[in-house]
Amino acid sequence: MSALVDLKNRLAEINAIYAAAGMMSWDQQCYMPPGAGAARATHLSILSRMAHEMFTADEVAKALTQARSEVDPQSEEGALLRVVQRDFDMATKIPTALVEEKSRLEVESHEAWVAARKNNDFASFAPMLERMMEITRQEAEALGYRDHIYDAVLDRYEEGATAADVRAMFDTLRTPLVKLVQDIQERGKPTHDAALTGDWDQKKQSEFTELLAKSIGFDFTRGRQDTAHHPFCTGWSVNDVRITTRYLPYIGSAIFGTLHEAGHGMYEQNSPEKWDLTPLAGGVSLGIHESQSRLWENIVGRSRAFWRRFLPDLHSAFPALASMDLETWYRAINQVKPSLIRVEADEVTYNLHIMVRFEIECALLEGSVAVRDLPEIWNQKYQEYLGITPPNDSDGVLQDVHWSAGLVGYFPTYSMGNLLSYQFWNAMKKDLGDLDQFMADGQFTPILGWLKEKIYSQGRRYTPRDLVMQVTGKPMGAEDYLEGLTAKYRGIYDL
Amino acid sequence: MSALVDLKNRLAEINAIYAAAGMMSWDQQCYMPPGAGAARATHLSILSRMAHEMFTADEVAKALTQARSEVDPQSEEGALLRVVQRDFDMATKIPTALVEEKSRLEVESHEAWVAARKNNDFASFAPMLERMMEITRQEAEALGYRDHIYDAVLDRYEEGATAADVRAMFDTLRTPLVKLVQDIQERGKPTHDAALTGDWDQKKQSEFTELLAKSIGFDFTRGRQDTAHHPFCTGWSVNDVRITTRYLPYIGSAIFGTLHEAGHGMYEQNSPEKWDLTPLAGGVSLGIHESQSRLWENIVGRSRAFWRRFLPDLHSAFPALASMDLETWYRAINQVKPSLIRVEADEVTYNLHIMVRFEIECALLEGSVAVRDLPEIWNQKYQEYLGITPPNDSDGVLQDVHWSAGLVGYFPTYSMGNLLSYQFWNAMKKDLGDLDQFMADGQFTPILGWLKEKIYSQGRRYTPRDLVMQVTGKPMGAEDYLEGLTAKYRGIYDL
Repeated sequence: MSALVDLKNRLAEINAIYAAAGMMSWDQQCYMPPGAGAARATHLSILSRMAHEMFTADEVAKALTQARSEVDPQSEEGALLRVVQRDFDMATKIPTALVEEKSRLEVESHEAWVAARKNNDFASFAPMLERMMEITRQEAEALGYRDHIYDAVLDRYEEGATAADVRAMFDTLRTPLVKLVQDIQERGKPTHDAALTGDWDQKKQSEFTELLAKSIGFDFTRGRQDTAHHPFCTGWSVNDVRITTRYLPYIGSAIFGTLHEAGHGMYEQNSPEKWDLTPLAGGVSLGIHESQSRLWENIVGRSRAFWRRFLPDLHSAFPALASMDLETWYRAINQVKPSLIRVEADEVTYNLHIMVRFEIECALLEGSVAVRDLPEIWNQKYQEYLGITPPNDSDGVLQDVHWSAGLVGYFPTYSMGNLLSYQFWNAMKKDLGDLDQFMADGQFTPILGWLKEKIYSQGRRYTPRDLVMQVTGKPMGAEDYLEGLTAKYRGIYDL
Repeated sequence: MSALVDLKNRLAEINAIYAAAGMMSWDQQCYMPPGAGAARATHLSILSRMAHEMFTADEVAKALTQARSEVDPQSEEGALLRVVQRDFDMATKIPTALVEEKSRLEVESHEAWVAARKNNDFASFAPMLERMMEITRQEAEALGYRDHIYDAVLDRYEEGATAADVRAMFDTLRTPLVKLVQDIQERGKPTHDAALTGDWDQKKQSEFTELLAKSIGFDFTRGRQDTAHHPFCTGWSVNDVRITTRYLPYIGSAIFGTLHEAGHGMYEQNSPEKWDLTPLAGGVSLGIHESQSRLWENIVGRSRAFWRRFLPDLHSAFPALASMDLETWYRAINQVKPSLIRVEADEVTYNLHIMVRFEIECALLEGSVAVRDLPEIWNQKYQEYLGITPPNDSDGVLQDVHWSAGLVGYFPTYSMGNLLSYQFWNAMKKDLGDLDQFMADGQFTPILGWLKEKIYSQGRRYTPRDLVMQVTGKPMGAEDYLEGLTAKYRGIYDL
């Protein structure tokens, strides 16, 4: 057996374990009965340890080294070996015991987070979060970094990105965004979205959001949508991609949550079938992944053209909204208003939410802030950046699932996604012309087709930086984003 | 590390893999999108192979032998080692390649069965069934047997039972059951169940069946109910037990399907927590398991006393049934009528369905019947035993999920369960007195408590034969069953 075949067989076994663990996590968030948490934690920690041991085994190191000497680095298999090498290098740096402990803690911590959020009880969640942050620090030290401890955790999600990059990005964004928000608040023609909050039928919301997801191209024969506390996208095959949404009094939660997750889902579903169940399938980085969820949620889903097509469907699903004409609806779903909840934030203030998290994460990793002080610091920063103070921790520091799962270094990729969504969109426009007309006609195949050809079909073959260069002809920047955002919102607010 | 600790650690890893595979199978039947079959087959076959390799490893053999020499056979740990030895002996006889192939085939074959049943197309399913039967024959030969090849597959589900036992059981049942059916058909006061078929709201059915399951003691904080093509019960922890039901025009499908699966589920949920995730947890054999599902479905769920308590709830959930008084309803749900579908058969004709399957399975294993001839043979036997011929294969040979999953040797345990359900019930009556009064009062705790103490809390500690002796003071027999059934139905039909 060649080294490459040996390696692929081993990767297939590891993939099966990760798929199983992925399904267990999905089930935990969608269906698991409350009493099953301890058993789930045991199973997931054992599976994580096994997968980690199998992946970091000496035989994998040998097969990988041997295979790399035999394969053309420019070939598809060369790309496979490159990403496996990257994953392997990261995995071998982290001790198996830490992997196992983190996995167990994730389950317990998730349950604790759900309860704490429900009961507005940060203190009950704090001990688990403290341990999770300690584990994250240990991971970061084990992974290593040149300049800042944050670089180590960020690189896991966005290959090659550093805390300095993130700071530079926010420095570029801060002034124009703050100015735009100010102008809107001081001189903008008022928008009204009160009508979007009501006692909406869950089944209707589920049917309507699935109609939207299906229309833009999420394939329900190879995926499904369920309900969870926090919208997310996961999967274990290009032919089995799961998205979730939630049904709240604000109808935009389900609509834009679904479009967002469907964006992630379509990226996963459109990896080449030949790469299914291998490390080459799926999104190349979280920033690029998020560019797709944000593109479908915001550039498509919050456009006037999109609703030219779907407003009649909205009206028939929710007769209470029938009095909203296109312009009123379009302005309502694009209302800019500093608010408490990131996932429901408008496009303009969204990055301010990320800045809060990024700064807190840096401080936590540096050790300059303690977990017990988080509610206070969180509230201070919300006051500073958004001009509002959360009335409780449930809508403050407890709002996001990420930290309970040890996902530190993840948030900045949301802002990168915002930038890239506009950058990709502009590149698409150059190729395809009038994208608004496609949307107004309900023709999403050209848009999806372009994204599929340029991005989705590449899986993890290229580094995120190379992919952005290849698709847009330039590195990631804030230009397209700021230009697009400013034009859109100056229009909406008549500035 | 002691041999016992080493063994337990290994068993915990194998348990995690089986739990993952169990959840993947559950998901496949409840939620999996149709396009995901191939990926699921790949994952399940890899996981099955891994678990089989891990369990049959030399280190397990060594640890098991060593541990057995160190542990008191009469202790709990002695019981653990006994069941592990039994599982190990069976597992080591089956080649890993066969395990992997069977696991892959199960997924593909399940999808093919669902489609074939839907389209009444046995021919499309036949090639997979042929291969599955070939695998089953190979397994049986590998497992070994003394008298009949069927003994090998039956012993997997019912330790120590043989084809000769099953034949003897059916020989005892045949004459009195056929006589009872004849008397009912010829001289019985007619029953009417047409009102039970209608366009029932699915949500109401789901709520009502969950009310029943909860009332008898199925713990929804440690389990849940979903919808599937075929009702089943599965689980991967005493605190995570999943049952399914289905919603058909005949309202009894969901009601008695749920009670049946809840019976299995309560058995699983009430294994001792200290044995959770170990081979000692769960049901000791399929016959004993089935005695519990049938006890709750038939002896409890089809009793007059039970509906004395729940008829008002039924009426308020389904106003169309409000005109049915207790007696009419009781007689309707106990209507005896030779019918096509086993899972919806009445108590009296039920075993006739099993006899058909048992005889066909024996013939298939002996090689005296070919898969392609199954529809014809099936229909002949239904004519012979039940006096009716299925109008199509969907309601004939394609009705059961079992063969698609290679579950051959499984059906006779349903009849054993019927016998044992009455045998256990009579033993309980001796201890607790008037069980009807408990049921009429909606007091199921004494009943569940007795079953828990005598049966559920024993897990797999004793052999099925020993457990039956221990609980009822005699070996499994047809006496209690025939007596109970005859008394009940002669009463209902005024004979």
